[in-house]
Amino acid sequence: MALSVGVIGGGQLARMMIPAAVNLGIDIRVLSENAGESADLATTMVGDYRDRQTVLRFAEGVDVVTFDHEHVPEEILHELVARGVRVHPGPDALVFAQDKLLMRKRLAELGVPVPDWARIESAGDLQVFLDDNGGHAVVKTARGGYDGKGVRVVTAADQVDDWLAAGDSLLAEELVDFRRELAQLVARRPSGEIVAWPVVESIQRDGVCAEVIAPAPSSAGKIADVASEIAHTIAEELGVTGVLAVELFETTDDRLLVNELAMRPHNTGHWSIDGSTTSQFEQHLRAVLDLPLGATGCRDEWSVMVNILGGPASGALSDRYTGAFADQPTVKVHNYGKDPRPGRKVGHVTAGGDDLDQVVFQARAAAEHFAD
Amino acid sequence: MALSVGVIGGGQLARMMIPAAVNLGIDIRVLSENAGESADLATTMVGDYRDRQTVLRFAEGVDVVTFDHEHVPEEILHELVARGVRVHPGPDALVFAQDKLLMRKRLAELGVPVPDWARIESAGDLQVFLDDNGGHAVVKTARGGYDGKGVRVVTAADQVDDWLAAGDSLLAEELVDFRRELAQLVARRPSGEIVAWPVVESIQRDGVCAEVIAPAPSSAGKIADVASEIAHTIAEELGVTGVLAVELFETTDDRLLVNELAMRPHNTGHWSIDGSTTSQFEQHLRAVLDLPLGATGCRDEWSVMVNILGGPASGALSDRYTGAFADQPTVKVHNYGKDPRPGRKVGHVTAGGDDLDQVVFQARAAAEHFAD
Repeated sequence: MALSVGVIGGGQLARMMIPAAVNLGIDIRVLSENAGESADLATTMVGDYRDRQTVLRFAEGVDVVTFDHEHVPEEILHELVARGVRVHPGPDALVFAQDKLLMRKRLAELGVPVPDWARIESAGDLQVFLDDNGGHAVVKTARGGYDGKGVRVVTAADQVDDWLAAGDSLLAEELVDFRRELAQLVARRPSGEIVAWPVVESIQRDGVCAEVIAPAPSSAGKIADVASEIAHTIAEELGVTGVLAVELFETTDDRLLVNELAMRPHNTGHWSIDGSTTSQFEQHLRAVLDLPLGATGCRDEWSVMVNILGGPASGALSDRYTGAFADQPTVKVHNYGKDPRPGRKVGHVTAGGDDLDQVVFQARAAAEHFAD
Repeated sequence: MALSVGVIGGGQLARMMIPAAVNLGIDIRVLSENAGESADLATTMVGDYRDRQTVLRFAEGVDVVTFDHEHVPEEILHELVARGVRVHPGPDALVFAQDKLLMRKRLAELGVPVPDWARIESAGDLQVFLDDNGGHAVVKTARGGYDGKGVRVVTAADQVDDWLAAGDSLLAEELVDFRRELAQLVARRPSGEIVAWPVVESIQRDGVCAEVIAPAPSSAGKIADVASEIAHTIAEELGVTGVLAVELFETTDDRLLVNELAMRPHNTGHWSIDGSTTSQFEQHLRAVLDLPLGATGCRDEWSVMVNILGGPASGALSDRYTGAFADQPTVKVHNYGKDPRPGRKVGHVTAGGDDLDQVVFQARAAAEHFAD
């Protein structure tokens, strides 16, 4: 019998697990919310991941359940585990990716460096936090945010009244004075093995990852060691299984602070498909199946990933292939099979080589063919 | 609308096109002979590729038809073309991969170096050929052979009586005194662009490819140039579209002679999935869609591919993953999703690096985990 992995969620992360699954002969099955989603080719069930019966039925007959996103309700995951289904990452770990308040609290307990933060239950709480932090704060909904959604920079206590009125759990964080954003990806298997990719630099635009440089320039030595140590600590102490992405701020006073966690393949790891001996997608499958993990060395001195955000104003991504391919024959193009729409992540490109300036140029030049 | 490619044949070559198609957002559809074949994930029709109606129906609505094998009857391919279907490689090229007699004749006309050969219609013809060639000959059926099937080394004129009685078209070839076997892969798109990968060494066992070393050791310079020139000539003069594999003998007197042709991705190109900027499978899709071709540089100084032939005597390939992955974390394992059976190609492994001895060791060590 082939190994089988059930992935809840049919987006591009599930889609990019398909090539790795094909290579390793893993039977990959996807629960998508709608027909025709990005992971359509491996979709074996269409349904609502918040519906207990749907998820229980989907989990039948797969060796392990994993995720394209962290939104499956905790109680359904606990029921799966109680029924003997292998779920990776498990609900006791995943809750820290689902709930930023729990995450902040737990990381602080572990001594992992995080920005100053506070739970916000009223405008009064926020006023206190603003007063303590020079009149600025980042307020986040504890649950449900992604790609800049559920995040606001505020300067007055009434700027999240709508969220408070809606009863959302909120936290405030200091507006970190950072030099750049980094991301440290590791993978951990249930039996304990952990491997790390090199720390990368992530360049955000409008709260969305736009570019990633792997490894992060000038990161060799202390930065790389600290980033890796932080991610190892989190993976071990939280019992994460599969890929863990730790988004980090590198502060202007040379500290690394944990920004966000994701317990799944992550946009900052897409470069690894073409740039690492083992891609984050293959590694995630190996990890959740508790197989020995693959080598995480870089295949090029530099890899640069540029997201294709929005895509062409008219027509399909593939309408631009002739121009893009002729212009940049060494760049790898990844098309998520989604309709172009402003701001939407519809694909990415990765370039690799010895000369960082040239690699950046190639990746941006290729991505530019898919803009507007 | 996504680009779509229809692949006739559901074996491992069709299967290995799936990751490339997923990456590029190409809708890949496969016509398999049976349910549950290697390319099952992309199989959209099950039927007989020798049945005209089946193939015509399969071809409806795809941008281009291509192949996992060369066995689709010529007349069906001509009818597809007459109906306006894009077929790559086209029947006028493919016939030279289908029929070794036509191939030998055409290559000889083109001045491409080939072994001495003759059409054999009787035991008398074979006796003449044996007399002219020191009493040894390789006799092949003109059609239908692969992996050592349809090939016999003979020393007496009565040794192919069964084939003659069956009415098979036969050719005899000199038993070439060769130092080693090489393979030159190129890809050509309909509008004319051709790119070549480096020439590789192919190590055969019992008529089946066992290992490939890319690039072929000591091939830089003249051997590489001649191999590439031969493949360019054949691709252009025969009008091949997609990947063309030219199997070559390197003779003990330093000549290169064409052994066989394949007009599809080929076992000697599997290393390119992990070892080249553009894999033969991605390139084949780009070529048949007439998109600009990708770069064919090597990602490692040396890549070594070892076939997994037969697989474990009991159990599945994946039962061996724990041992294989732990032992060789840098080696890439490819599992074709086929049941193990003696002699069957059920997967391959590829290793890469700077030190050829070490790379060979790693690839063989990984493959060994899947034997017996």
